[in-house]
Amino acid sequence: MREITLDEIEALAVGAWVLGTGGGGSPYLGLLNMRRLYADGRRVSLMDPDELADDDMVAVVSNMGAPLVGQERLVDSANIARAVTLMEEYLGKPFRAIMSVEIGGNNGVQPFLAAAELDRPVVDADAMGRAYPEAQMTSFAVGDLKPWPLSLVDPRGIEGIVAKVPTWKWMERLSRKMCVEVGSIAATCKAPRTGAEVKRWGILRTTTQAIKLGQAIRLAQKEHRDPVQAILESEKGLLLFRGKVADIARRTTEGFLRGTAKLDGLDEWRGQGFELAFQNEWAVGWQDGVPRVMTPDLICVLDTVSGEAIGTETLRYGQRVTVVALPAPSVFLSPRGLDFVGPRAFGYDLDFRSVFAGAAA
Amino acid sequence: MREITLDEIEALAVGAWVLGTGGGGSPYLGLLNMRRLYADGRRVSLMDPDELADDDMVAVVSNMGAPLVGQERLVDSANIARAVTLMEEYLGKPFRAIMSVEIGGNNGVQPFLAAAELDRPVVDADAMGRAYPEAQMTSFAVGDLKPWPLSLVDPRGIEGIVAKVPTWKWMERLSRKMCVEVGSIAATCKAPRTGAEVKRWGILRTTTQAIKLGQAIRLAQKEHRDPVQAILESEKGLLLFRGKVADIARRTTEGFLRGTAKLDGLDEWRGQGFELAFQNEWAVGWQDGVPRVMTPDLICVLDTVSGEAIGTETLRYGQRVTVVALPAPSVFLSPRGLDFVGPRAFGYDLDFRSVFAGAAA
Repeated sequence: MREITLDEIEALAVGAWVLGTGGGGSPYLGLLNMRRLYADGRRVSLMDPDELADDDMVAVVSNMGAPLVGQERLVDSANIARAVTLMEEYLGKPFRAIMSVEIGGNNGVQPFLAAAELDRPVVDADAMGRAYPEAQMTSFAVGDLKPWPLSLVDPRGIEGIVAKVPTWKWMERLSRKMCVEVGSIAATCKAPRTGAEVKRWGILRTTTQAIKLGQAIRLAQKEHRDPVQAILESEKGLLLFRGKVADIARRTTEGFLRGTAKLDGLDEWRGQGFELAFQNEWAVGWQDGVPRVMTPDLICVLDTVSGEAIGTETLRYGQRVTVVALPAPSVFLSPRGLDFVGPRAFGYDLDFRSVFAGAAA
Repeated sequence: MREITLDEIEALAVGAWVLGTGGGGSPYLGLLNMRRLYADGRRVSLMDPDELADDDMVAVVSNMGAPLVGQERLVDSANIARAVTLMEEYLGKPFRAIMSVEIGGNNGVQPFLAAAELDRPVVDADAMGRAYPEAQMTSFAVGDLKPWPLSLVDPRGIEGIVAKVPTWKWMERLSRKMCVEVGSIAATCKAPRTGAEVKRWGILRTTTQAIKLGQAIRLAQKEHRDPVQAILESEKGLLLFRGKVADIARRTTEGFLRGTAKLDGLDEWRGQGFELAFQNEWAVGWQDGVPRVMTPDLICVLDTVSGEAIGTETLRYGQRVTVVALPAPSVFLSPRGLDFVGPRAFGYDLDFRSVFAGAAA
């Protein structure tokens, strides 16, 4: 366990935004809170998963909802902290530590907000290794862990608990409807996990991974090297396409941001086209109509010059972007993992083929 | 406190169906359960509100949802009992007794189902004196009592708690969305009440009222007297219209059954028309286009021959029906009461005028 500097949290935000694969909302929203909390003298420690006792209770937090709405309703650390204390009141016992359900996007920073408010450490792990839009798209669901209970908080004084559900899909359905009703964004504390469960089924040390990724990007920017190249090296990724945004269509429905983006190729891709579909996060990419990359491989759309990640809610016409793929956490590559997060889980009639499958040769 | 006979519960079902003002679902669904429970040797006692200590905790139950769906998904006493025990687990303390949020329709019988399962008495009171479609349409809301918490149960193993809301309308919004998601029907335990609150803000002795009404109807049927006349005498009601159903339109939307019914006059009303609008319950009636009767006055559509109440979900073309009005509980006749359940609360731009206003002369 070691204290995290504000500089590391700034790097975490940069790295988490890339791992958000277009979704999860901008981590800079949470970062503004962290700057305030650190200025007030609060400090947060990062705890390695191995430091957890098997019976320690861990709070798994996330800001749930549609990224476009997250842009309009500011993040307040009090909300996510209240989701945690509501769960503690419901369970009748305290949490040892706090972790994120998804390292990608703003939820990479959310456990730090709760941790700073509640003086608890953050566990260096998550349950996606990236960002995903639905409750059942986690390593905990793949591990068939208990999906309930969940606490949900809206700052207007609305608090709800999903006390029991028969399946992870039912947790998604019920919590999503509650989230939509309060305005398509809510602070949530997901099903609590034991230390043993985190160590067995968590995706481990992804906080450190995101910090290192962010540091690599910032260093490249500072030294005027290509930050996209720094991302590819840091994450062992693949460069897929470079172009400019020709079209973007998005709609906020059922608590999600859905749509498509079309890119016209530049440089060696001139004359070629790339199309991306998203449900909060980028899900599938087609090059000239042929499926090129798909979930669970991470699809990241980056600003070609700065290397900054671009969210599905902020991508705009004319932007110069680079599409890269990063390797998926191995837990999602099993047949059961693909049932939860493969292309069919998003409604695409495609057999998963990793973009990395032929690349190792 | 006295033990209730199965014969009294049978009469309660008949009376509650009339007080349901077209909604609340058929009480015969719950009655089937009560026959089974009494056959198994269970017995339920009815408790006068005055027997409650001020700090006794009372469970307020209801089967929530759209009546048409209630016809298709059978009532099981285990569900409503689970809503009560879930609330007890959440509160960490036991209930002294159980009451209904609405005496009208199937919810007049629901507390008896829970009481038989859990060996608790039923309080002789409700919070509507009839049936209403929404959570904020109660005497407890008029009394500005705390709207939360609420427990919600679906037999597939889905359990939720609305832990806190800023207003009664928010309780309606959030619980309705959860109810719709599990299939537009759910067993619920509403915000718990103290004995003092029930005595001050409950609508008292409505269970006894419904039993007596049912007994009067059954006696008239047995003695071949006019049961509609028996209802008018028992409840000091007014006969408004007699006719046959010329048209009925209904749709299940947002967890409610909504629609309109048109009647062609018979006997002294021949050549005249009567139109009714409903949201689960009958809300407004127009005679030849002129508003004749409106909520909170009770509007009841009865089978002209048998005197049996007819639900908004079962009314059908060609049926011979009689429309009667029964007086509203006085708590709803205040300006604040009308804010919650007057015609404007249902979207009708009408000033409330009781059909009984001129009738006393």
